[in-house]
Amino acid sequence: MNTSDLNAFHLHRIGTVHSPFKEKFGIPRQSGLIEGNIGQIELLPPWDRQEALQGLDGFSHIWVVFIFHEALKPVEAWRPTVRPPRLGAKRQGVFATRSPYRPNAIGLSVLGYHGWRKENGKLLLEVSGLDLLDQTPVIDIKPYLPYADSLPQASGGFAAEAPQSDPLKVVFSELAQAQLQPAQQRYPQLRRLIETCLTHNPRPAYFGSIDKREHFGIKLYEFDVQWQLEAERIVVLSLFAESLPE
Amino acid sequence: MNTSDLNAFHLHRIGTVHSPFKEKFGIPRQSGLIEGNIGQIELLPPWDRQEALQGLDGFSHIWVVFIFHEALKPVEAWRPTVRPPRLGAKRQGVFATRSPYRPNAIGLSVLGYHGWRKENGKLLLEVSGLDLLDQTPVIDIKPYLPYADSLPQASGGFAAEAPQSDPLKVVFSELAQAQLQPAQQRYPQLRRLIETCLTHNPRPAYFGSIDKREHFGIKLYEFDVQWQLEAERIVVLSLFAESLPE
Repeated sequence: MNTSDLNAFHLHRIGTVHSPFKEKFGIPRQSGLIEGNIGQIELLPPWDRQEALQGLDGFSHIWVVFIFHEALKPVEAWRPTVRPPRLGAKRQGVFATRSPYRPNAIGLSVLGYHGWRKENGKLLLEVSGLDLLDQTPVIDIKPYLPYADSLPQASGGFAAEAPQSDPLKVVFSELAQAQLQPAQQRYPQLRRLIETCLTHNPRPAYFGSIDKREHFGIKLYEFDVQWQLEAERIVVLSLFAESLPE
Repeated sequence: MNTSDLNAFHLHRIGTVHSPFKEKFGIPRQSGLIEGNIGQIELLPPWDRQEALQGLDGFSHIWVVFIFHEALKPVEAWRPTVRPPRLGAKRQGVFATRSPYRPNAIGLSVLGYHGWRKENGKLLLEVSGLDLLDQTPVIDIKPYLPYADSLPQASGGFAAEAPQSDPLKVVFSELAQAQLQPAQQRYPQLRRLIETCLTHNPRPAYFGSIDKREHFGIKLYEFDVQWQLEAERIVVLSLFAESLPE
């Protein structure tokens, strides 16, 4: 078969990610480093068939192939190098990074798999280790095969080490604690999620230049989590609920 | 951002696989189990830019995201279950398998990476552990990040174990040995490739019913490798070169 005429491919969204991360800022890079980042993948019609998941219960982890929908650009806008955040300003070849800004905006994440359920007619896969934006379009789900996919001996270039955990301690103001209590009724993992997201701050280089009185925010679920840096600690100031469009 | 209108995605071929495997039969399932299965990924214009590979030399392995171009089917032909060859006739949910016949015919392979070179104006990545058909369209290349991608503790369902190595010994007839000698000038790894492809026969279940006098063939590079089963050994009978269209 001569495939040289096969140069464009049309793919369908098969599912949608439901994640606590409502905006790109604050999303942990690469999954599995954060606690509490649980969510669902909703399979969409016509792919929402239970039979399609038959046998998946034997697997602890799955690959999710998705579209970086906030990084879609026309092909003409492609650039061969990107600036990975962990390297500061040093440009790297796009194929040497997992940057969203790539010739095809395809992403790959390994997530913990915790079974599926039906809810209001929707077929939902329960997942953990999410590093994906809410509403991310999913184009494939595959089992993680340790014998083929796990290569502990692989060497990993500039990203060989896991990102350094930021040693900053995370504390909650009185207001934040009071707001956390009812929020935890709905999201029992919320405190751990906030703590680990801020501890593993994805932008350590950022701290050098910030005005320490400035407030920052990350959006988790429907909460606008406001925090600031105080004497080498991160203080969570408040978590007001926003009304999100359904 | 409401992404519900983002249901179709247009992806571009960025590269082409050059592999010894000229047909699906005989391709080892999941890479890394076979020796001698080396090849190249050719980056295509406008993506054939050296800068796009800057930094990749630090990585021992890469992910190749590709299209199962021989499994492309209209979306209406989608079926929620498939029959993985290792399970014989037992159907499995497609999302619990790595079958090519999936809602989006996307494949994922981890390959050894051995640097890149320019040859006749083409930008070629040298790879090993290939389990891909020659001419496979590539849609993305990413570094393998051991800290994120390697999960030796993951459990793997029915495919938890690596495929059982077929204990069959592979021997070469006098004719095959004579033909191998010049062929090895061009492909020094050819003997190991034939041996390991046939030893790790991807269809062990197949042997139960075959007529043992029957000949089988696999195509590796330009060679039609003929073999038969004789007294629990695989005998390579011949490897005649075919003229392949360029």
